[in-house]
Amino acid sequence: MDTPRKHPRIKSLKIRSLLVKGLKEGIVAEAGLIAHGRGEAFDYLMGEKTTPEALKAVKAAVYALQQASNPVISVNGNSAALQAREIVELSNTLDAKIEVNLFHKSQEREEKIKNKLLNHGADKVYGVGEDASERIPGLESNRGKVDPLGIGSSDVVLVMLEDGDRTEALKALGKKVIAVDLNPLSRTAQKADITIVDNIRRALPELTKAAKKKQKKERYNNKENLKQTIKKIRAGI
Amino acid sequence: MDTPRKHPRIKSLKIRSLLVKGLKEGIVAEAGLIAHGRGEAFDYLMGEKTTPEALKAVKAAVYALQQASNPVISVNGNSAALQAREIVELSNTLDAKIEVNLFHKSQEREEKIKNKLLNHGADKVYGVGEDASERIPGLESNRGKVDPLGIGSSDVVLVMLEDGDRTEALKALGKKVIAVDLNPLSRTAQKADITIVDNIRRALPELTKAAKKKQKKERYNNKENLKQTIKKIRAGI
Repeated sequence: MDTPRKHPRIKSLKIRSLLVKGLKEGIVAEAGLIAHGRGEAFDYLMGEKTTPEALKAVKAAVYALQQASNPVISVNGNSAALQAREIVELSNTLDAKIEVNLFHKSQEREEKIKNKLLNHGADKVYGVGEDASERIPGLESNRGKVDPLGIGSSDVVLVMLEDGDRTEALKALGKKVIAVDLNPLSRTAQKADITIVDNIRRALPELTKAAKKKQKKERYNNKENLKQTIKKIRAGI
Repeated sequence: MDTPRKHPRIKSLKIRSLLVKGLKEGIVAEAGLIAHGRGEAFDYLMGEKTTPEALKAVKAAVYALQQASNPVISVNGNSAALQAREIVELSNTLDAKIEVNLFHKSQEREEKIKNKLLNHGADKVYGVGEDASERIPGLESNRGKVDPLGIGSSDVVLVMLEDGDRTEALKALGKKVIAVDLNPLSRTAQKADITIVDNIRRALPELTKAAKKKQKKERYNNKENLKQTIKKIRAGI
């Protein structure tokens, strides 16, 4: 995809190019492009900046991940296409596992995502093919499969750009769910324990930065934080 | 793409499937999927309903199209994938020409869109390949080409899901521009003479319905109408 150089939305067009490249490489699903566009609109309404509320959620998230006994970062096609290096860096910093989980499951795509993460320095990637042998209740067919050594036995899961159904199913299993989601009204955002309303391109580096320090327990109210974020979007329109 | 049958957003997922099908058929561009997602977010914030403001804009639009001496409907990949039949019906009702205009120009894609429109009963489709021989100022390279027998000699142009640059270039040529755009803050929405802030899946049938009657001149203020729409979105968040 050629990006007209003088276009006023050059930055956003460049990220789009990365996703289109990911589609052509078999990492991103077609529906992932649409989901990205949806997020883009919310990012645009927030002025494409990390809010103080998002930073507050980042600190609460890192505290939870540092306290966890088996933290897992759940990766899909879009996050792998846009942030493979940063995902591996966060995983190393937190000593958290990485598991591939796709809305539109395909072993071929899982393998490609796994290879991309390994190429960026991941030690091990969970949840690919037969490794995702555990069914979690509440989800149809393949969408409900997780790796018993990864998410299956995790206590805290970080999800990015996730489907609402899966977030609910993880919660029902008693997992603590941390979500990065640009839509503060989405079911994922509303159901997660800690919601970072931000673009993953900005949120992941912030998470890694925060994870380099030992975070302290602080008062954090996710509902309140989401309310403040929604207020900001409303004011920005 | 398999759509989980019980998913709460089944309607929006079905439209997504149509676009993915369009991508596979070579009618939709990858970037078109992302642009669709962006629109989806605004539609979601408006409750996925046609507002009274949109209906007001529809009537003003039809009045302008009925008064025009050479009205043209500009079609891109997304609109052809989602609404080919309705575009042809509107074109017949208004006696308006249809011209293909793509942000990411490709003659192959133009031909496919043309054939889809012909299959749905269009008499003639302008702007394909060499027919788009007229350069319009203000746009780089291929994006600025129009058909001298279509948009080149038009006085009123209906654009859907359009790029802001092109809207500005058409305005600079003295054309009256009517836009269907879900983002009331976009440059297209702000620069058009008449902006219908609605999903094309709902707006096109409304346009055809209105076009079946002779519309009268009524007071219409686009800036005011957009302001009201933005107010509604803000209240809906």
